[in-house]
Amino acid sequence: MSTRDRLSSAVNAPWFQTTITVLILVNALVLGLETSPRLMADYGRLLHLVDMAVLAAFVLELSLRIAAHRWTFFSDPWNWFDLVVVLIALLPDWGPFGVLRVLRVLRVLRLLSVIPTLRHVVTGLFKAMPGMVSILFLLALLLYVAAVMATNLFRVTAPQYFGDLPSSLFTLFQIMTGDSWGKVAREVMTDQPAAWVFFVGYILASSFVALNLFIAVAVEALEHDANTRTGGEGQQEPPQQDRDLLLEELRALRAEVAAMRSERAADRRSEPPVADPC
Amino acid sequence: MSTRDRLSSAVNAPWFQTTITVLILVNALVLGLETSPRLMADYGRLLHLVDMAVLAAFVLELSLRIAAHRWTFFSDPWNWFDLVVVLIALLPDWGPFGVLRVLRVLRVLRLLSVIPTLRHVVTGLFKAMPGMVSILFLLALLLYVAAVMATNLFRVTAPQYFGDLPSSLFTLFQIMTGDSWGKVAREVMTDQPAAWVFFVGYILASSFVALNLFIAVAVEALEHDANTRTGGEGQQEPPQQDRDLLLEELRALRAEVAAMRSERAADRRSEPPVADPC
Amino acid sequence: MSTRDRLSSAVNAPWFQTTITVLILVNALVLGLETSPRLMADYGRLLHLVDMAVLAAFVLELSLRIAAHRWTFFSDPWNWFDLVVVLIALLPDWGPFGVLRVLRVLRVLRLLSVIPTLRHVVTGLFKAMPGMVSILFLLALLLYVAAVMATNLFRVTAPQYFGDLPSSLFTLFQIMTGDSWGKVAREVMTDQPAAWVFFVGYILASSFVALNLFIAVAVEALEHDANTRTGGEGQQEPPQQDRDLLLEELRALRAEVAAMRSERAADRRSEPPVADPC
Amino acid sequence: MSTRDRLSSAVNAPWFQTTITVLILVNALVLGLETSPRLMADYGRLLHLVDMAVLAAFVLELSLRIAAHRWTFFSDPWNWFDLVVVLIALLPDWGPFGVLRVLRVLRVLRLLSVIPTLRHVVTGLFKAMPGMVSILFLLALLLYVAAVMATNLFRVTAPQYFGDLPSSLFTLFQIMTGDSWGKVAREVMTDQPAAWVFFVGYILASSFVALNLFIAVAVEALEHDANTRTGGEGQQEPPQQDRDLLLEELRALRAEVAAMRSERAADRRSEPPVADPC
Repeated sequence: MSTRDRLSSAVNAPWFQTTITVLILVNALVLGLETSPRLMADYGRLLHLVDMAVLAAFVLELSLRIAAHRWTFFSDPWNWFDLVVVLIALLPDWGPFGVLRVLRVLRVLRLLSVIPTLRHVVTGLFKAMPGMVSILFLLALLLYVAAVMATNLFRVTAPQYFGDLPSSLFTLFQIMTGDSWGKVAREVMTDQPAAWVFFVGYILASSFVALNLFIAVAVEALEHDANTRTGGEGQQEPPQQDRDLLLEELRALRAEVAAMRSERAADRRSEPPVADPC
Repeated sequence: MSTRDRLSSAVNAPWFQTTITVLILVNALVLGLETSPRLMADYGRLLHLVDMAVLAAFVLELSLRIAAHRWTFFSDPWNWFDLVVVLIALLPDWGPFGVLRVLRVLRVLRLLSVIPTLRHVVTGLFKAMPGMVSILFLLALLLYVAAVMATNLFRVTAPQYFGDLPSSLFTLFQIMTGDSWGKVAREVMTDQPAAWVFFVGYILASSFVALNLFIAVAVEALEHDANTRTGGEGQQEPPQQDRDLLLEELRALRAEVAAMRSERAADRRSEPPVADPC
Repeated sequence: MSTRDRLSSAVNAPWFQTTITVLILVNALVLGLETSPRLMADYGRLLHLVDMAVLAAFVLELSLRIAAHRWTFFSDPWNWFDLVVVLIALLPDWGPFGVLRVLRVLRVLRLLSVIPTLRHVVTGLFKAMPGMVSILFLLALLLYVAAVMATNLFRVTAPQYFGDLPSSLFTLFQIMTGDSWGKVAREVMTDQPAAWVFFVGYILASSFVALNLFIAVAVEALEHDANTRTGGEGQQEPPQQDRDLLLEELRALRAEVAAMRSERAADRRSEPPVADPC
Repeated sequence: MSTRDRLSSAVNAPWFQTTITVLILVNALVLGLETSPRLMADYGRLLHLVDMAVLAAFVLELSLRIAAHRWTFFSDPWNWFDLVVVLIALLPDWGPFGVLRVLRVLRVLRLLSVIPTLRHVVTGLFKAMPGMVSILFLLALLLYVAAVMATNLFRVTAPQYFGDLPSSLFTLFQIMTGDSWGKVAREVMTDQPAAWVFFVGYILASSFVALNLFIAVAVEALEHDANTRTGGEGQQEPPQQDRDLLLEELRALRAEVAAMRSERAADRRSEPPVADPC
């Protein structure tokens, strides 16, 4: 057994994966505790140490897995995910990278790649994506068109909501989720009473598209489920077996009849000699 | 090849549609940039120029398509949509037409008619419409009846919400979407404590009808999907093929038996002469 | 043709129903206009007159229909609905009945009973009811139990929301609809920080039950739809027809073989005499 | 009939269950009335007395049922539920147990275990649980990761929402339910304009996962329903019967042909002696 084979069986062993899961949970706890300034004042050093140790373990783990799987490591998107969330933690925490430090907590999401059930669920979620792309684009287009219109119409009346295009986009996204749209609309309507046309129209249009987004995902899920069920249980099978059984029976019968007929023919050919001497 | 044929193949060519798509995206960008007063101060002239150029291109495009397709151009509702959104931009920007200028951004929605996938999705959405009409009318009726009642009941107590019929309609539409209804109801209930009966009743009734609207659309979508699937995959086909195979086999067998029987009959007719001399 | 038969055919005639529909729409308009104090000051007399005239027409219509259908009139719940909404308008508008006058607008809902499509849709909605009763009762029970708990826990801290049982019921109904629950919870949590346990638990429980209410209605609708489709299109039929065709063919074949066999037997019985003289 | 058998038939008798149902309803009413300080001042003694009496009746009921069913009593989770909600009421109402007194109202939930229809519905709800566990865990993980990030990012800007990890968890749960997220986000964005990236991302991610949670439950319900229907109506049966009928017919035919052939063979064996003398 080569070193690489031994490595490979080690990184795929249950104890290896359990260890990683425990380390991720420890890391999640430490990252949570580090949000408390009081705890950081008292135990900051310890927490930082544990954080570093877990990070080192993750780097080691990834090195081992890359060593074991070589280039095939990079063919699984989950491995890329593991790699990126670990590499983020290695970035320096000053200057332009400072804000990225906050992404260190994404390491906790490695639970998704490590626990098979969760991995399966997330993969399922991403499979629902393609059916959503067109309708999501439609929603985005609706948002953009409405934002340009709203900025032109309400820029002066309600600058806090529609002062520029980004503000309008944010406000209209908020309205799309149904949050406090009445308050926004009433503020605009005090100066522009006809603004209700825009808001009611936008809400009807975006709910209608969102409803269809929802239904598209649901139909896809049900369809997938129906396919799995008919494929798995083999609802199609019995008729197939029936047909085979019936055909077999029929062919046996036909062979019987054909045999009888050829025997008859043989009789007829052999009868004349019997009858001739007569 | 006539001029019209050459025109027709040109306007249907991929490069023509790609050009239009690019022009729409450029137009969307320009319309977005025009919402910024700062950019308009610096580059207003340029942006206006690009806007005019794109508009001219659209007018040319539509003229070519009308020339190519003649009257059949007007039989496709998507073409009407293209025509209207381009004509809106040609309206003068003063007086009563001023507010319509804001509709120029609807030109960006031409993406829906130009990109086939989006066109398909939007057509699908509109096909879901007929199943919704009755229930939408029911919701509108509920809204109107509740608005008349609310205006009569709460006009004095909460004039900002229920001062007149249009205000009541707007407030009740807001409540129907579930936005901040508690705040509205509490303001009314400080003076009329029994008002909760109206609000709770209205919310239960409108949620119930809206829920059924949702389900009607979902059922229609699933049904459509089920039909497509059984039609497409031909789940019905195999039994049909089975039947044909079995029938074919049976008929062959019957022919065999019939042949045998007629041979027997022929034998019997020919046997007597054989037996007679005996 | 008796007077009653003539009456019966009159009240069921299309022109009769169209007249009633127009009267309801006129009534709806008048009831809407009556909400405006300014219009009432100028045209109050006219509007009142039209209202009275329509009401008289409705009373006449119902009398005719009762005369035509006699007791069977009362066996249709829609007729009861018509009767009640018209009788409400005949109540005196003073004293304890004053508030009921506001229910006069329910007459507009007669559109539901007069237009067959809407009648059909509403009947469909009510058919979805039985499947909801258990889960609605569950929601009500949850609401009651939570309201008693909330009143005991938060009566002193937030009397405006949980001061007594009715207030708590209203607040928790509001929270169940997801409206501004964060604001309520935060106000309580300033004094009782552990209150989040109650609010989060209540929201999770009520969303879970409401989600299942939704799904129960959707499943019922899909089931009903599936039954209608298989019953209507007769997806079951083809296999039945196949079977019949195959059986028919098989029986014909069997008859053929049986005939052949009995002919053979006859031959054998007749052969000996042929062979005997030999 | 032993004492235990008599006990057993008594506790399962309809009158016993009806009595308990009535007692629970009386208890629910009393617990509701006890929330009113005014009623407690006037009738506090009476209400307390009724409460005690009902509690005594419940203790007696449970003792009888335990005596009747012995250890099998503890194998039904519903009985554990009954036991726990009754035992809670026996806790002393001072010191650390004080807050638990508020849980006395859970006794009203015994309606769920006593009325068979509700029991069935609740059991159904809990059966939908396993399909939700993975996605609920995913939502919880998303909540935790987002809360750690939000605390690190916005602790200083908006301490009332993101001051520490528990506050962030509560605020992000509130945002997940869609309640007033715009207000929270706008407060943060006054100081940190780029915060919209976090909020929009979080809302999209959590809606997407919640949507899939919803669909998972719906698909499970539909699947369960489909299984029940095909199992109950026996949609599979007819083809099976068809096959049997056809096979039976075919085998009869084959037997007929086989008989005919063996007769022929017998003839041929017997014919030679007939022909020989010829």
